[in-house]
Amino acid sequence: MSNIKVSIITIGDELLIGQTIDTNSAWIAQKLNALGIDVIRRVAVGDDKLAITSALDEELSKSAIVLITGGLGPTADDITKPLLCEYFGGKLVVDEIVLAHIVDIFTRRNRPFLDRNMKQAELPDNCTVLFNKMGTAPGMWFDKDGKIIIAMPGVPFEMMSIMEDEVLPRFEKQFISDALLHYSVITAGEGESFIAEKIQDIEESLPVHIKLAYLPGAGNVKLRLTGRGKDPLALSVELDKYQKQLAERLRNIVVALEDIPMEQVIAKILLEKNASIGFAESCTGGNLGHLITQIPGATDFFCGSIVSYREEIKKNVLGVKQETLDNNGVISEQTAIEMVQGAIRVLNCDYALSVTGLLGPASDDDEVEVGTVWMAVADKAGTIKTKKFRFYYDRLRNKEMAVQAAFRMIHKFLLGDL
Amino acid sequence: MSNIKVSIITIGDELLIGQTIDTNSAWIAQKLNALGIDVIRRVAVGDDKLAITSALDEELSKSAIVLITGGLGPTADDITKPLLCEYFGGKLVVDEIVLAHIVDIFTRRNRPFLDRNMKQAELPDNCTVLFNKMGTAPGMWFDKDGKIIIAMPGVPFEMMSIMEDEVLPRFEKQFISDALLHYSVITAGEGESFIAEKIQDIEESLPVHIKLAYLPGAGNVKLRLTGRGKDPLALSVELDKYQKQLAERLRNIVVALEDIPMEQVIAKILLEKNASIGFAESCTGGNLGHLITQIPGATDFFCGSIVSYREEIKKNVLGVKQETLDNNGVISEQTAIEMVQGAIRVLNCDYALSVTGLLGPASDDDEVEVGTVWMAVADKAGTIKTKKFRFYYDRLRNKEMAVQAAFRMIHKFLLGDL
Repeated sequence: MSNIKVSIITIGDELLIGQTIDTNSAWIAQKLNALGIDVIRRVAVGDDKLAITSALDEELSKSAIVLITGGLGPTADDITKPLLCEYFGGKLVVDEIVLAHIVDIFTRRNRPFLDRNMKQAELPDNCTVLFNKMGTAPGMWFDKDGKIIIAMPGVPFEMMSIMEDEVLPRFEKQFISDALLHYSVITAGEGESFIAEKIQDIEESLPVHIKLAYLPGAGNVKLRLTGRGKDPLALSVELDKYQKQLAERLRNIVVALEDIPMEQVIAKILLEKNASIGFAESCTGGNLGHLITQIPGATDFFCGSIVSYREEIKKNVLGVKQETLDNNGVISEQTAIEMVQGAIRVLNCDYALSVTGLLGPASDDDEVEVGTVWMAVADKAGTIKTKKFRFYYDRLRNKEMAVQAAFRMIHKFLLGDL
Repeated sequence: MSNIKVSIITIGDELLIGQTIDTNSAWIAQKLNALGIDVIRRVAVGDDKLAITSALDEELSKSAIVLITGGLGPTADDITKPLLCEYFGGKLVVDEIVLAHIVDIFTRRNRPFLDRNMKQAELPDNCTVLFNKMGTAPGMWFDKDGKIIIAMPGVPFEMMSIMEDEVLPRFEKQFISDALLHYSVITAGEGESFIAEKIQDIEESLPVHIKLAYLPGAGNVKLRLTGRGKDPLALSVELDKYQKQLAERLRNIVVALEDIPMEQVIAKILLEKNASIGFAESCTGGNLGHLITQIPGATDFFCGSIVSYREEIKKNVLGVKQETLDNNGVISEQTAIEMVQGAIRVLNCDYALSVTGLLGPASDDDEVEVGTVWMAVADKAGTIKTKKFRFYYDRLRNKEMAVQAAFRMIHKFLLGDL
């Protein structure tokens, strides 16, 4: 087991009243984890001197490294820097490199340079300054009694830049630890307990240095095998063996053997086939297109999406017949079919998926229950498969479920398994 | 000041390796905050008996209420229930109501009922069972030495349902506390320090029971005034006064006086005007449509979006001229203009916005720098305004910045201010 324990302290009232979701901690944890460094605790406290000091005391008693994010901005509600300076017995002095950098940022952006920006260049004289190329608040690295304390701004991309450029390379040099490897098996369509029952004997046969975790998501369950060991190669061979056992046992519901989102699984298959996809979206509002275009180079497999939210767009752009809408309703198998046919034609893509549904909260259609969604998936040759779904949650979660169901439906169709 | 202090403990290895982002804590904090109950700490620990016990000890020493989420699933990696049972000196017994509910869920979903599901109906005999209508793992409420400890599953919608139905109503009855009010001023287009300088005298004039916080986001800065007091009415009058002062001082950059996303600000204006909007998206991939359709009843103001990711869709669906693409390039003012004209025509909307850009990482166009985005906004009468943007971050953040810039551009256009 690794001996280096890390605590993350995030500072900010906005975290405690729920105005901001803490994405920094997860990002930091991922990065450290990849180095085999264990995050053992994450603590969030408010912009309060006593609370910050007490959190620092506590985490320093548990961990060798304490990472702090937040509380370094130029405004009055940020109190971390003077506090840390005092805590470690230093005094604030102007750092000329940081000052030049801040002046440069303001000059480039054509903004007036203010006294309070000057203050951002003042740093404790007993820390190593961690350069922040993305913003005005640098990070600070303190060594004290064999422990390391690092403070960084809370703005995610500034924190990430400091971590990548300054912190992680130092950690890599300073710490040698066991290899830590994660192998995943992503399943869809069955629940956690069904899977647990199916693989009980495999789970029980795992050696102590390999752990299995179940991570349920929107319509899927991720199984994560985590192994630790001195020899990365031997460990990977071992993990590979258990991953294969799990995948074989669960073959009907496995969708991927790496922890990537469903849209990336689909993108890979499309690239292998040298094929393209397009969407005719209604209730998902463009989220299918949005998610697939998060992938760099999406233009190689994605043509576009017709978000036909109103009926007239379904008719005018996708060619859904008025008769179909009148006789079958907007949320119907036949509408989904004509939408997907329209998408193939208009977007000139090899594959297409259409989705039309009522996500809630209120129904403006007496004949359709809230949560009802019809989808159709098709290829250029004219094969069409349809499916009706019913989701039981609120608008946002129903949308999320519909999007995941859509990606799974495409996945099965691409594999000839629908 | 409120006397009731709450700690939130989230349990799960997936939180410490960064596989899951903790959205539960923020949601819980918001709900408690609205009741005037202070979350003072949020702690995340792994699926480890010692770590959980130590976190419980510590948080019980600091807070009157400890809320725990996670670690209650049916699989072997969930250890919270037996631990809590032991911690509070109870024993596990089958709860017949919970058992009936679980059996019912499995029957409805046509799934086999397993031994390990039976175990989910076993609950400590010294807790109040909190019914979970959304899933199989109920919550548990323990009273001990004048403190309250509540454990809930980590699946967000199950936790939310238990909080709404079981926990919050009990809190409301049990605790009377000061009123706590938040008033917001949302600005866009200037940085935190510029704003701080502008409003310094107002900030310094705030009484001790009103705090001001700066919350920077993607291209905007939220100012949040938080007040506490015995008399909610007097407090709201007071906060209203300071909010007005801030809004007046910052009038050129204020976009809203409530903490709602920009798309909701736009939706309100469109509804007032009884007007509709549509999009012609390229690099944003459908995210504009996705975000605006998060709003219930979006069909009242949103027509649709043409996600014309490939050039041929821009030509075939939106009517962008081949000549324009050849002479000006895909990412150009003229392309944006023809896209927005196409959107107005094809979507038959009163207003439209088009966006075409290169978000990164690599450039497939030698003539355009990564991060360059052109947008055009138009109305049905033919007024068109265009704007060129340059974003300097990575693909995902550039997309986020482009989306926020698009909403701000629409907002200004709707107000006749562009």
